[in-house]
Amino acid sequence: MRLFHKNDLLKLESRYRANFINSLCGFKALQLVGTKSSEGQPNLSLINSAIHLGANPPLMGYIQRPHTVEKHTFENILTTKIYTFSNVLNEYKVEAHQTSAKYPREVSEFEACGLEMAMTESGMPYVKAASLVMELELKSHYEIKENGTILVVGEIQNILLDDKFIFDDGTVNISALGSLAGVGLTGYAKVDEIVRYGYAKPNEKVKKL
Amino acid sequence: MRLFHKNDLLKLESRYRANFINSLCGFKALQLVGTKSSEGQPNLSLINSAIHLGANPPLMGYIQRPHTVEKHTFENILTTKIYTFSNVLNEYKVEAHQTSAKYPREVSEFEACGLEMAMTESGMPYVKAASLVMELELKSHYEIKENGTILVVGEIQNILLDDKFIFDDGTVNISALGSLAGVGLTGYAKVDEIVRYGYAKPNEKVKKL
Repeated sequence: MRLFHKNDLLKLESRYRANFINSLCGFKALQLVGTKSSEGQPNLSLINSAIHLGANPPLMGYIQRPHTVEKHTFENILTTKIYTFSNVLNEYKVEAHQTSAKYPREVSEFEACGLEMAMTESGMPYVKAASLVMELELKSHYEIKENGTILVVGEIQNILLDDKFIFDDGTVNISALGSLAGVGLTGYAKVDEIVRYGYAKPNEKVKKL
Repeated sequence: MRLFHKNDLLKLESRYRANFINSLCGFKALQLVGTKSSEGQPNLSLINSAIHLGANPPLMGYIQRPHTVEKHTFENILTTKIYTFSNVLNEYKVEAHQTSAKYPREVSEFEACGLEMAMTESGMPYVKAASLVMELELKSHYEIKENGTILVVGEIQNILLDDKFIFDDGTVNISALGSLAGVGLTGYAKVDEIVRYGYAKPNEKVKKL
């Protein structure tokens, strides 16, 4: 094991450091964020920072980096207050990664990257081939003053999912759904079978479900 | 595909709903958080919400739920300002899950759950068997007013890692390190080989690294 001190990190070349530090937290929750501008222009962008915030109300967040291609997404969310998350499958991981390129505002990443678009009842775009789709309503956003990133908080309004993928305790088998896990800024990986355990109690050993 | 409306979610039994909603964001970043009380009592607790916030300065967050067993952890972090993250490996996934039980304050989860403890140079406890360890310094915390959860923001001070697991672009091969991915509140999974792509540009197809 090598010990990296904070000063060692500062000496790294900036893209190398970004890849390195981005990998450290663990596997990342990938989602393709579908939005629409006030003129009706669809937009799709990849995030790797979806995060569960609460089950009741059902809240999900993601980290918005200002000054990146994702800014169209955030502007659209602030305008329409409604957006979708589509999971990333192995079959379209290349197309999903390509949505992170800096396309001009008038370009739909669905078309530019070759992902077929579908629409929710309320007219918001999502990835037709996705096996888990959510529609969210913006609740609020919090600026993280240390670096200007923004935690965007949304409430889940609708979920599209084949319910054969739900275990009997309510957990969704996202491995069987085909969702990929993200690693750093460049990595994608399939995930093996899920092992599950019951609620842990101090005086009892954990039981496999 | 079944369409679940928000009203369907409200009708679910509360633990089932928690498992269900917790699974939707995607794979989760598991970390065992090592802390010490002001009296020097070590504490270890499992989180599934580690999140990258920035590379320069190197910032990482996690979501703190008030009124849970993790509260000792958060109290310790507020007191000492220093804490560690240890990754979760297949060999000790049962022990890691067991740390989520509500042990009394005076109990060390290292001992109670059977995980050997090691200490950083500054005396903070971590899991000796871990293959990726970070030491973090508390920078700030943000309350999410929608449900009272807290985003805890720390700056990475030190990293323990065998550098043979770093790809040449800086990405860390956390699959090869043996890190598990979390699913909902009960699930753990191994992750396959990582496929990597270069920086995406609008007029060029993504290239495999």
